[in-house]
Amino acid sequence: MTPAIILIEPQMGENIGAAARAMENFGLNDLRIVNPRDGWPNEKAYAVAASATRILDNVTLFSNTNDAVADLHTLIATTGYTRKMIKPVITPKEAAQKTMQAGAQGNRVGLLFGAERTGLANDDIVRCDSILVIPTSPDYTSLNLAQAIVVVAYEWFCASTSLAQTHGTTGPNATPVNPDLKLATAADVQGMLDHLESELDKADFWKEWKKKPLMWQNLRNIFTRNPLAIQEVRTLRGVIRCLVEGR
Amino acid sequence: MTPAIILIEPQMGENIGAAARAMENFGLNDLRIVNPRDGWPNEKAYAVAASATRILDNVTLFSNTNDAVADLHTLIATTGYTRKMIKPVITPKEAAQKTMQAGAQGNRVGLLFGAERTGLANDDIVRCDSILVIPTSPDYTSLNLAQAIVVVAYEWFCASTSLAQTHGTTGPNATPVNPDLKLATAADVQGMLDHLESELDKADFWKEWKKKPLMWQNLRNIFTRNPLAIQEVRTLRGVIRCLVEGR
Repeated sequence: MTPAIILIEPQMGENIGAAARAMENFGLNDLRIVNPRDGWPNEKAYAVAASATRILDNVTLFSNTNDAVADLHTLIATTGYTRKMIKPVITPKEAAQKTMQAGAQGNRVGLLFGAERTGLANDDIVRCDSILVIPTSPDYTSLNLAQAIVVVAYEWFCASTSLAQTHGTTGPNATPVNPDLKLATAADVQGMLDHLESELDKADFWKEWKKKPLMWQNLRNIFTRNPLAIQEVRTLRGVIRCLVEGR
Repeated sequence: MTPAIILIEPQMGENIGAAARAMENFGLNDLRIVNPRDGWPNEKAYAVAASATRILDNVTLFSNTNDAVADLHTLIATTGYTRKMIKPVITPKEAAQKTMQAGAQGNRVGLLFGAERTGLANDDIVRCDSILVIPTSPDYTSLNLAQAIVVVAYEWFCASTSLAQTHGTTGPNATPVNPDLKLATAADVQGMLDHLESELDKADFWKEWKKKPLMWQNLRNIFTRNPLAIQEVRTLRGVIRCLVEGR
């Protein structure tokens, strides 16, 4: 139950294309456009969308917001500032949670975005049950339309993924950290450290031997605070041997 | 203590401009570029950045990654997939937290982004202590460069804002984990690695020289995926010297 993205009178094809690409990245697919300034389809949108053209091919066009949102249950207005309207103001994260909750109850959410220059008309904001404001630096609050959609889509994707994980299903993003990695045992690591210590002893590394305990503790820490793979331990032993015998 | 954004061999001026705009929105200011394909300054970058030109005016240009990261303490590689490298994989949120923690200890973070077509070279990933992967739909994982920066910058801004709110102050204010620890800069670490490499070359460590690139990559990873203190880098150089000259 993904949210619909509704662009109302967008001006630049590039932004429509960039929005489509971000939607594809973050698992959204329902893009609706009300009165695009330059008509539809739009070459520039396709140029910017890279290979994410599926969403552009399936855009639904409307001549007014009313029709564009007709089948949706919950509408959220995305604006750069909150206007003088009594309406809850929510963050992208809260909007994502709201969307998930609505979906769990069989309800679909629409996220409304206005034209680049002017943002949403008050009439369109009025339709919505809340206002989504993306937090920005007070020094530069003007977000690009497509970049705003990146943030909103990203937060939705994170929320949907973490919900999937919570429920024990395989979410879209379970990146295995290092599938091939075989960690060395503590004994492997200790063997390498014993080797290093004995070479440092022979070469009189410690100079003042009473300092050895602390020096050696610090040196071991470099290697032990990080899990080492079996192959890495082997490599380090090779390095020690090579440096000692090389000349 | 904001993170630096480092673009390595970016191809399209439009992406540089869009990245700058997002940085301005989310309170970042240090943009570094290594060998931009179309030179610098770039008209298209300015066209896309809208009024966010301050960051473009202050871009620092470099001819290699080494110099671009020299003064930074913690490097994070942003990639679309994790490669076969032994390195922690983190989310944008975790990267933001890592950046805040580093900042609280007086350490600066650099976020590395590769060219549009190819992403980061393995040699640049090796420098980093972790790999940031932005979660995406498995159906379309290819993020636009600037849109990736939107996500990373947005998460940083959220982390810095919420930290400020939690502590009731206006900026980063976490308890330093290790107040005495002075992290080495990337240049310090590189100096140690250069030292090690030259000794291994002299001692014919690689045996089959065509295998050197991969062997050396794996070996460097042992040291770079972990932040090293200045003192530790010094100690490691002492170890190398001692092992070589000891006998």
